[in-house]
Amino acid sequence: MPEFFKESSSVEAVNSRIAPDTNPRFKEVMTSLVAHLHAFVKDVHLTQQEWEVAIDFLTRTGQICSEERQEFILLSDTLGVSMLVDAINNRRPGGATENTVMGPFHVVGAPEREMGAHISFDGKGERCLFVGRVIDLHGNPVAGARLDVWSDNSEGFYDVQQPDIQPRWNNRGIFTTGEDGQYNFVGIKPVSYPIPHDGPVGKMLAALGRGPYRPAHMHFMVTAEGFQKLVTHTFVGDDAYITCDAVFGVKQTLVAPFERINGVETIWRSSFDFVLTPIDVSP
Amino acid sequence: MPEFFKESSSVEAVNSRIAPDTNPRFKEVMTSLVAHLHAFVKDVHLTQQEWEVAIDFLTRTGQICSEERQEFILLSDTLGVSMLVDAINNRRPGGATENTVMGPFHVVGAPEREMGAHISFDGKGERCLFVGRVIDLHGNPVAGARLDVWSDNSEGFYDVQQPDIQPRWNNRGIFTTGEDGQYNFVGIKPVSYPIPHDGPVGKMLAALGRGPYRPAHMHFMVTAEGFQKLVTHTFVGDDAYITCDAVFGVKQTLVAPFERINGVETIWRSSFDFVLTPIDVSP
Ligand SMILES: [Fe+2]
Ligand SMILES: [Fe+2]
Repeated sequence: MPEFFKESSSVEAVNSRIAPDTNPRFKEVMTSLVAHLHAFVKDVHLTQQEWEVAIDFLTRTGQICSEERQEFILLSDTLGVSMLVDAINNRRPGGATENTVMGPFHVVGAPEREMGAHISFDGKGERCLFVGRVIDLHGNPVAGARLDVWSDNSEGFYDVQQPDIQPRWNNRGIFTTGEDGQYNFVGIKPVSYPIPHDGPVGKMLAALGRGPYRPAHMHFMVTAEGFQKLVTHTFVGDDAYITCDAVFGVKQTLVAPFERINGVETIWRSSFDFVLTPIDVSP
Repeated sequence: MPEFFKESSSVEAVNSRIAPDTNPRFKEVMTSLVAHLHAFVKDVHLTQQEWEVAIDFLTRTGQICSEERQEFILLSDTLGVSMLVDAINNRRPGGATENTVMGPFHVVGAPEREMGAHISFDGKGERCLFVGRVIDLHGNPVAGARLDVWSDNSEGFYDVQQPDIQPRWNNRGIFTTGEDGQYNFVGIKPVSYPIPHDGPVGKMLAALGRGPYRPAHMHFMVTAEGFQKLVTHTFVGDDAYITCDAVFGVKQTLVAPFERINGVETIWRSSFDFVLTPIDVSP
């Protein structure tokens, strides 16, 4: 007689059912998932009523998802899972620029711009010069590096969140470095903004006494042949939310200077060098 | 400067954000959830692509839910979580009848029937006499015990799955014991049936080489004043799926005899005594 389900051997009861010819990686992942899930239930002695609340929460989280909204990614973000997955898959040597979360607002196909171009078209916000170099671990310039950049506007919205407002591609652009590895463009000093918090995840955050805000940041995706893709932000260090980013995206090394300058229109300057890691190099 | 997110201290980064005045039980549950979730991600070294598959799976699981379908309960059932939650919340002394999963097909408000009544109205299936006693841990009869019973029909469907077929309440009923604690009624010998498997959970089971079938069973919910609510099934022991119930509901003590008898129409007899546990008694 095989073993039936028992509290004491609940993990084995489930995992012993996996067929021998199951994809080995899927088996590995599911076996671990079941073990950790059961350990959680046992650790907290989850009640029937709490289980019902959890089922209802997951259901509502799925049902609020749409073309424009991904509440399960928000859940992953706010529980630190997205940052953790990013971290374990992008371990880099000291000195290399670190990754942070991609976020939901990147758009493929932003326009290519000349170095020095303006990318903020709505006339709002405080103009900011972003400047620096793309270099390798030895400090040598990386030519032909592509910087895909995006930020919110002065009201805290990305252009895709306000599709009716023209012109398109506000606060976005793609720049390619020359032989000197340098980049510079003019956007605005980004502002902090809340993640969508009118759904189940917002309710969860509120119940934990946590806020929905992200500290102000400029998104950069930097790619160059022979180097690992860098998906990161630079952060405004004196932002009120720098220590309580709702999605845990802040890393010490990604806090960039934002200095006042005496330009006529451009009144901030943020200088940051991106240090790329060669493919196949890890710490 | 507070600690920013690091792979090595990811759990602390998230849990240290919980506000001091958070409901202590919610804090306990969420703290443990984050710890186990991060441990899972680290143990399997979850890739970015696998994370995307997981987000998509959870989203589809939520979106297929409707008034008639609860795919997250199916997920919980098929990962053994439902049985585990039931087990840890219903620990009982030896000799007491054990719980198993409620399942999604119970309906409140089934008709009260006299002892001996027939509950199968469609003329299909093999008639079966269910008979036995409701007793306490000392073997004394429990009077006034309410048995709410339900099973599938001979095609493997509960009446709520075929709402257009009349009469209503096929293979359901409520019986109340007298002083002798005895019950008996005539239904059909239940048949094995698959859980809904045309959605994400069915795909998961298939990828694990697991089937969707449940071995044949009769549902019983037995309540009596002063005793713990008993939610259980009796199982047909020689069912082909007895050792591979898709939701892990089978317990050795719940396998009941189904014996052929020489009645004119009724050709099976299943005798089972339900042993109730007093409230506040645990192992
Ligand atoms: Fe952002
Ligand atoms: Fe059932």
